[in-house]
Amino acid sequence: MGQKPITFFRQVIALCVYPDLLEDKFPEDAKNRARRILQACGGGSLGAYSASSGIEVIRQDVAKYIERRDGGIPSNPDNIYLSSGASDAIVTMLKLLTSGEGKTRTGVMISIPQYPLYSAALAELAAVQISYCLDEDKCWSLDVNELRRAVKAGREHCNPRAICIINPGNPTGQVQSRQCIEDVIRFAAEEHLFLMADEVYQDNVYAEGCQFHSFKKVLFEMGPEYSSVVELASFHSTSKCYMGECGFRGGYMEVINMDPEVKLQLTKLVSVQLCPSVPGQALLDLVVNPPQPDEPSYDTFIKERTANLHILSEKAKMTAQVLNTVPGIHCNPVQGAMYTFPRLTLPEKAINAAKEKEQAPDMFYCMKLLEETGICLVPGSGFGQRDGTYHFRMTILPATEKLKIVLEKIREFHKRFTEEFS
Amino acid sequence: MGQKPITFFRQVIALCVYPDLLEDKFPEDAKNRARRILQACGGGSLGAYSASSGIEVIRQDVAKYIERRDGGIPSNPDNIYLSSGASDAIVTMLKLLTSGEGKTRTGVMISIPQYPLYSAALAELAAVQISYCLDEDKCWSLDVNELRRAVKAGREHCNPRAICIINPGNPTGQVQSRQCIEDVIRFAAEEHLFLMADEVYQDNVYAEGCQFHSFKKVLFEMGPEYSSVVELASFHSTSKCYMGECGFRGGYMEVINMDPEVKLQLTKLVSVQLCPSVPGQALLDLVVNPPQPDEPSYDTFIKERTANLHILSEKAKMTAQVLNTVPGIHCNPVQGAMYTFPRLTLPEKAINAAKEKEQAPDMFYCMKLLEETGICLVPGSGFGQRDGTYHFRMTILPATEKLKIVLEKIREFHKRFTEEFS
Repeated sequence: MGQKPITFFRQVIALCVYPDLLEDKFPEDAKNRARRILQACGGGSLGAYSASSGIEVIRQDVAKYIERRDGGIPSNPDNIYLSSGASDAIVTMLKLLTSGEGKTRTGVMISIPQYPLYSAALAELAAVQISYCLDEDKCWSLDVNELRRAVKAGREHCNPRAICIINPGNPTGQVQSRQCIEDVIRFAAEEHLFLMADEVYQDNVYAEGCQFHSFKKVLFEMGPEYSSVVELASFHSTSKCYMGECGFRGGYMEVINMDPEVKLQLTKLVSVQLCPSVPGQALLDLVVNPPQPDEPSYDTFIKERTANLHILSEKAKMTAQVLNTVPGIHCNPVQGAMYTFPRLTLPEKAINAAKEKEQAPDMFYCMKLLEETGICLVPGSGFGQRDGTYHFRMTILPATEKLKIVLEKIREFHKRFTEEFS
Repeated sequence: MGQKPITFFRQVIALCVYPDLLEDKFPEDAKNRARRILQACGGGSLGAYSASSGIEVIRQDVAKYIERRDGGIPSNPDNIYLSSGASDAIVTMLKLLTSGEGKTRTGVMISIPQYPLYSAALAELAAVQISYCLDEDKCWSLDVNELRRAVKAGREHCNPRAICIINPGNPTGQVQSRQCIEDVIRFAAEEHLFLMADEVYQDNVYAEGCQFHSFKKVLFEMGPEYSSVVELASFHSTSKCYMGECGFRGGYMEVINMDPEVKLQLTKLVSVQLCPSVPGQALLDLVVNPPQPDEPSYDTFIKERTANLHILSEKAKMTAQVLNTVPGIHCNPVQGAMYTFPRLTLPEKAINAAKEKEQAPDMFYCMKLLEETGICLVPGSGFGQRDGTYHFRMTILPATEKLKIVLEKIREFHKRFTEEFS
């Protein structure tokens, strides 16, 4: 999508991969970082297995990163598990939480719309999906009454054990308010639910007045009544934010208030796959421990990071702005993350035409768009939506000039489509 | 363990990670290889997600590697799935094959002794482990009568669906004969079992008269009666052989004769985790497509590969030779792979002392060894063994001089231990 990798990150990983380069003309801080990582690797090589929960020095760096991010609230490296991207850790946690048969089967609350990793993993584990709807009219915020409705309905046919939140949101691009997060934590405490906070877009916040609040921080600021009881796993990754290094499959989770006996089982569970990719672990280390102001790579690092985030922010605003000029498309502001999930008003005739083809109406719309323009959007029905509403998901990732063209083509298509079926 | 990474592999990966190095003084073939891999990556970067089954060019290279290895028997890139090491692909296949409840539950045949990945994955999936014993007296070879006994016993309480073979063997270090492999294929055909061939040690064959025969090759040489019906998945990895790049988590499986509808489900299953580590995929590409005789890096590559394999071969011979000089230790030749699984004769008093401590006798032995010498061997009970026999597993991996000392210390310890409990 045209976003460039962060130079410092790639320099350090190249040095780690081929340490002969340590004799070469690389910035001293990149060399120091590479030496430090290699020293923490078995045999001083990225090629050795690491501990199943990840390299200890890197888990320590992750804990320090979390402490800085959360204003000093302590983080224990023993609670950190490195993973192959966030999705690996999310699936591991869902696996750990799933048990029972029939009405005692584990139920897991996930948002609608949702990121399909969750529904897919729950289906694979034969766990029960308990859907709660985000409030589109309030910019995809969470409503605790909807959570209560959903868990009550869930208790009829399964054993609700966990609630998953994606913040900033995928595919809906919202950033939850602090109040919202407190509500969710209180709800999880009341209902004895394990809280899973998917926070992989924590640096992707664009809208004015919005701010990322980590569940960990809010939990601890709510006092020991909550911070000593609510079980929480929060997830982060090297794949999003300003890094975009998806291919390296780096990630981690922090686990809070987990019963030590269960934690032993978790450690056992992750050990089956030996260890996460060590180059991915090394890259994660750089994300949580980037160049410091007194280091030679600092200025370039800040420039690159700022540029990447600035461009994403511009594209987020442009996407919502252009789509909202189209009659029949309603788009909430893209407050964060990398997606928008606009609502479509589709003519009755189009809905009937879709039914004749045995397609969901938004699938019908997206297929026509694809055929006529070559643009591939994902129909809302792939993510879940309230009955009778239609959406598509698109990313804001294409390069600005390309994104402009894409949005323009969607506008023209929507007009043509609406006319054709009116 | 002192084994050096292959220079060419690390050079190419470093070039892929930090393409600015393409302007630097690297061998031309390394640069060409890096350019070719980057061209096959999304956005020309290791940082982009790949297809869930892996980068197409690399799957093509894997198919060509298999064809060369198997004397021209065709391999279709559409049958290749790249993975995060072999264990990832093995767990995926076991997941795909597991279903049913109670007596219809999937049963999977695994060897005893076995590599604990298999028992752990089967336990996690709640599939039924059907154990068949390798014949220690015939150098851990497979006996088809034992397979028949095991599957018959299995049918009493589950639905046997698959048989797993590790060849060369982990933890037993045997290399199965061609006859053995034919027997297994015939057995799988008769019993309609899915065949899973774990062949990650395919380059690790040391004993004279032994040769690696891939299940794929033998299957196709047995003619269409078998090659058109027996379902086979075979696994390979960047972690073993002369490479030893475990930390990169590279691997693949080739799937033969799988029903197209099932293959669609397999593709869906692997897509949940997005994609295997792209640096791992790149490394795998170099393993299956190493420097050619007319390329500048060829001589160094061959020298390094030969040296690594030669040292392993020496250590394999030395390990069996030294252990067999110890009265009370019986060690089969280490024909291949990286392990030995010697049988211990333990004095009655030691067995009783272990019972008092509620430890398996070989656990008791290994704990005492650890306490007295600092050497950590894994008791045979962790891998499975015939009742009333005792073993330990050790790797042949420590550097030659270190291994000599280790073996010497084990010899002394065994003598002391036997005297103490006689």
